[in-house]
Amino acid sequence: MTDKFARIRVVLVNTTHPGNIGGAARALKNMGLRSLYLVAPKQYPADRAVWRAANAVDVLDNAVVVDSLDQALAGCGLVLGTSARDRRIPWPLLNPRECGEKVWQEATHHDVAMVFGREDRGLTNEELQKCNYHVHIPANPEYSSLNLAAAVQVLCYEVRMASLADSEGQSPGPAQWDLPPARAEDVALYFEHLEQALVDIGFHDRENPRQTMTRLRRLYGRIRLDEMELSILRGVLTAIQNQSYRLARAKEALPPAKAE
Amino acid sequence: MTDKFARIRVVLVNTTHPGNIGGAARALKNMGLRSLYLVAPKQYPADRAVWRAANAVDVLDNAVVVDSLDQALAGCGLVLGTSARDRRIPWPLLNPRECGEKVWQEATHHDVAMVFGREDRGLTNEELQKCNYHVHIPANPEYSSLNLAAAVQVLCYEVRMASLADSEGQSPGPAQWDLPPARAEDVALYFEHLEQALVDIGFHDRENPRQTMTRLRRLYGRIRLDEMELSILRGVLTAIQNQSYRLARAKEALPPAKAE
Repeated sequence: MTDKFARIRVVLVNTTHPGNIGGAARALKNMGLRSLYLVAPKQYPADRAVWRAANAVDVLDNAVVVDSLDQALAGCGLVLGTSARDRRIPWPLLNPRECGEKVWQEATHHDVAMVFGREDRGLTNEELQKCNYHVHIPANPEYSSLNLAAAVQVLCYEVRMASLADSEGQSPGPAQWDLPPARAEDVALYFEHLEQALVDIGFHDRENPRQTMTRLRRLYGRIRLDEMELSILRGVLTAIQNQSYRLARAKEALPPAKAE
Repeated sequence: MTDKFARIRVVLVNTTHPGNIGGAARALKNMGLRSLYLVAPKQYPADRAVWRAANAVDVLDNAVVVDSLDQALAGCGLVLGTSARDRRIPWPLLNPRECGEKVWQEATHHDVAMVFGREDRGLTNEELQKCNYHVHIPANPEYSSLNLAAAVQVLCYEVRMASLADSEGQSPGPAQWDLPPARAEDVALYFEHLEQALVDIGFHDRENPRQTMTRLRRLYGRIRLDEMELSILRGVLTAIQNQSYRLARAKEALPPAKAE
């Protein structure tokens, strides 16, 4: 099987702060990517990059430093560029989710690049025009400029989500539960037991039930108890009833005046 | 129209690096959020936080610094905690997309908290047990620990995506409920009360707790108790304890031979 993650490269253009390069490297590796291209970084190598990369220094070590965007894009069959602003000539525009899906799809066939611009002014028009698609991260209109490493994180995250949807043949679902659900007949017995225990402790009156049992049935019904949970709850009821029983016996043994 | 973004708080627990607090503040504001709670940050206020926050210093200025997680969760009707690890007892688990949808849905009705743990070891089991849901950011199994600000970025991004889908009329709302959800602080008191009652009836031993309370926290945590249900459950506990008290008094009044 093709290693699709190896075919997806993240390209950072003219980065000013080395901390962002390290943060981006970490974001890549966290999301399963590892191919990082640096186009004429302002200050690199740098300690701050290593520090922010944490356990992703291998991504930094293998980063390809080049002079021009064209060199970084060599061999790619699909190029996507991030863009915060509306451009005069609108380009085919994807949101991050669509970007992740497209990147993952096409990495089956060829190398793919996701390109990120400078911290202060993004990609130039010329650079954006080298891209097949533009990607816009939807942001607060009053403050739309994401930190560079944060933008890399979002796009790499969406690539990973697309990869998971692909491997499961569907959207990533919730995790498995550790135990099977309680069976309906056992839950029904639990409700009988619960009602009796509530009668025993004087909380519930079958002649004047109000909504108590209805509300408790709704509560435990929607919880989808598992087998172990049901067993714990039954154990609690039994302990409550043992106490009621002992209290009743103790009262019988007492002289009338002292009972209560 | 309600300002749903104002109802969504991001809670950072015991953060070590102030840079991450600044990065988180920026991620919030970029995605349209603004309510930041800091539980016992190691080093704060700090220049590094201000620097990383860039134009989101207003979020830092308005951040609420508290001593305990319970204080940060006060008033919340839904609490989600980020978790990197598999726990022995799995909690209801959401991926970031499901988290964004749920947060956005429920912010119509009540305050919501997304909780993030320490850089090195996340949230403790005790903290995670205060959450209705756990959120797992799918990551490279070989390097799954995201930078804190990056994790905040991903979850806030998904909240924004959900808000956009909603404004386009794509995201169906949840079924109506008849009562508001119990507040986090009241649920915390319920668990204290429950544990004490289980001790009183001899079902639970604080010295040898096994998994009882953990399983019960998970059970009542995922049920999303409403106010009335919580009130019924508190009433049941009080009735149980009254009985324990009466049993203890009856035993004292009995001659020794007959007291069990």
